[in-house]
Amino acid sequence: MVYLNGNFVQKDKAYISVMDRGFLFGDGVYEVFPIYNNNVFGLDSHLNRLQAGLDAINIKNPHSNIEWLGLIKKIISFNKDINQAVYLQVSRGCDDDRKHTHNILTPTVYIQSTGIQPRTKDSLLSGKSVISREDIRWLQCNTKATSLLANIMYSQEAKELGSEEAILYRDNVVTEGSSSNVFIVKKDCIFTHPKGQHILPGITREVVIKIAKLLNLKIKENAFDMTSLMNADEVWITSSTREILPITTVDNKIINNGLAGPIWSVIYDQYQSLKTLKAVSYTHLRAHETPEHLVCRLLLE
Amino acid sequence: MVYLNGNFVQKDKAYISVMDRGFLFGDGVYEVFPIYNNNVFGLDSHLNRLQAGLDAINIKNPHSNIEWLGLIKKIISFNKDINQAVYLQVSRGCDDDRKHTHNILTPTVYIQSTGIQPRTKDSLLSGKSVISREDIRWLQCNTKATSLLANIMYSQEAKELGSEEAILYRDNVVTEGSSSNVFIVKKDCIFTHPKGQHILPGITREVVIKIAKLLNLKIKENAFDMTSLMNADEVWITSSTREILPITTVDNKIINNGLAGPIWSVIYDQYQSLKTLKAVSYTHLRAHETPEHLVCRLLLE
Repeated sequence: MVYLNGNFVQKDKAYISVMDRGFLFGDGVYEVFPIYNNNVFGLDSHLNRLQAGLDAINIKNPHSNIEWLGLIKKIISFNKDINQAVYLQVSRGCDDDRKHTHNILTPTVYIQSTGIQPRTKDSLLSGKSVISREDIRWLQCNTKATSLLANIMYSQEAKELGSEEAILYRDNVVTEGSSSNVFIVKKDCIFTHPKGQHILPGITREVVIKIAKLLNLKIKENAFDMTSLMNADEVWITSSTREILPITTVDNKIINNGLAGPIWSVIYDQYQSLKTLKAVSYTHLRAHETPEHLVCRLLLE
Repeated sequence: MVYLNGNFVQKDKAYISVMDRGFLFGDGVYEVFPIYNNNVFGLDSHLNRLQAGLDAINIKNPHSNIEWLGLIKKIISFNKDINQAVYLQVSRGCDDDRKHTHNILTPTVYIQSTGIQPRTKDSLLSGKSVISREDIRWLQCNTKATSLLANIMYSQEAKELGSEEAILYRDNVVTEGSSSNVFIVKKDCIFTHPKGQHILPGITREVVIKIAKLLNLKIKENAFDMTSLMNADEVWITSSTREILPITTVDNKIINNGLAGPIWSVIYDQYQSLKTLKAVSYTHLRAHETPEHLVCRLLLE
């Protein structure tokens, strides 16, 4: 079952008008919420980013956060998997005819959920391969818009070359992946591109930065170039569904002898602790906090 | 009536799946064919650009040119207007689930037509106003893709400011309008941005260039900056549905004393002659050719 404009319907019965501006213009935004043990991980962060995206393209948010949560919970309940990825799209809606300009319309809301099987740490130790490509995308990458043609072309090319992802660079500066953020480690310091118009402000990116700071690891939101990436001690990519993936091959060049690095390992473990704890238990942890609990609490504050 | 995937249906009965990659990713291309006196103006040029767009994003053209023409003629026949704009969109089609990568899918084809009322020359003599904005679009603007969010945001902003169009500049170089190409005239020489990744290769743009050359007007496909535009003797924008529009106000600054210029007037007249002649009569013109006929024949050769 999926949700479409007020109704829960079978996915193969979910239809929209050809006049939907999502179809005609890629005129909408979206979010992907990871669900672990039936809890929405990073709910507030995702809803905040959804709001920012709607504001950026001037669509009125059709639901309150409480309403969104209700819809997400309902969609999750139709699916037996305990780990899921909820996809939520808001397009500007349907106009009478196709024209670039628009009147105030009723937004189209589409929500679906699919089961996910997070990869085990063991399966990640040898890392994944990526390709690098010039970043030709627009200069408002901080808006999570459905006008994604550039992104999907990169993803498709990576897939056809047997790679996990395409890492993008603009004027030789690494921005992000086609659907992920990029981190490198050099001499025990972690680097990632600063927020702004060149990258999506990833929720997993934010969690990783917070974990690193809480663990007293050195981390800098500084841009780095392709040479630094190729000579890094560690390279990772992050996204809500792929979590934190070690990259050990870039354009066929092997990074860190083809092995996931020690800093990735520490961050990865913390992230796993974090996502498996239930949100409802956070408020009771202070008396007997473990390091994982401390991370959880601080992340939520 | 509209055409959708093999069927002619009422527009309000034309529905696509939410899994259509046109809706989820803006993963498609489109064309707009102007129809004058029930003839498709620039048919071959539009079909060639459609093919180029499909090739660029790796979608197999679902129809031969003869099939496309048949579909367009049928769609035109449902509409009583003698002047129409046919909108044709090809998206990559529907996958089983939402993921950036894709398998080979059956493309979705949507075609509609709406009546147009070309503006009279008299109504254009005082020109139109535009705003200028920084061009933040992707670097593959030569592909007429449906991932149009940046373009529609510019159009909407222009409309809300009472302007016809937003003219875009990148690194201070004028590229094009949000849905048009831009020409300026300075000291009897016409300038327009060269083809490439920064602009759509407009069919009207191409016709204007050919007309100018045939009339022995000086024309250069050279880039120019915002200062040159602001100090131009004439500014025009071109598109298949708006034809050739004189611009007399840019960001509230008046161009050429607020009047359409003489070179615009000459080109405009030739364009009007061209579009009202029936394609079928071209081959018989040599014996008693007028200048307009000469232009027509040469444009078609």
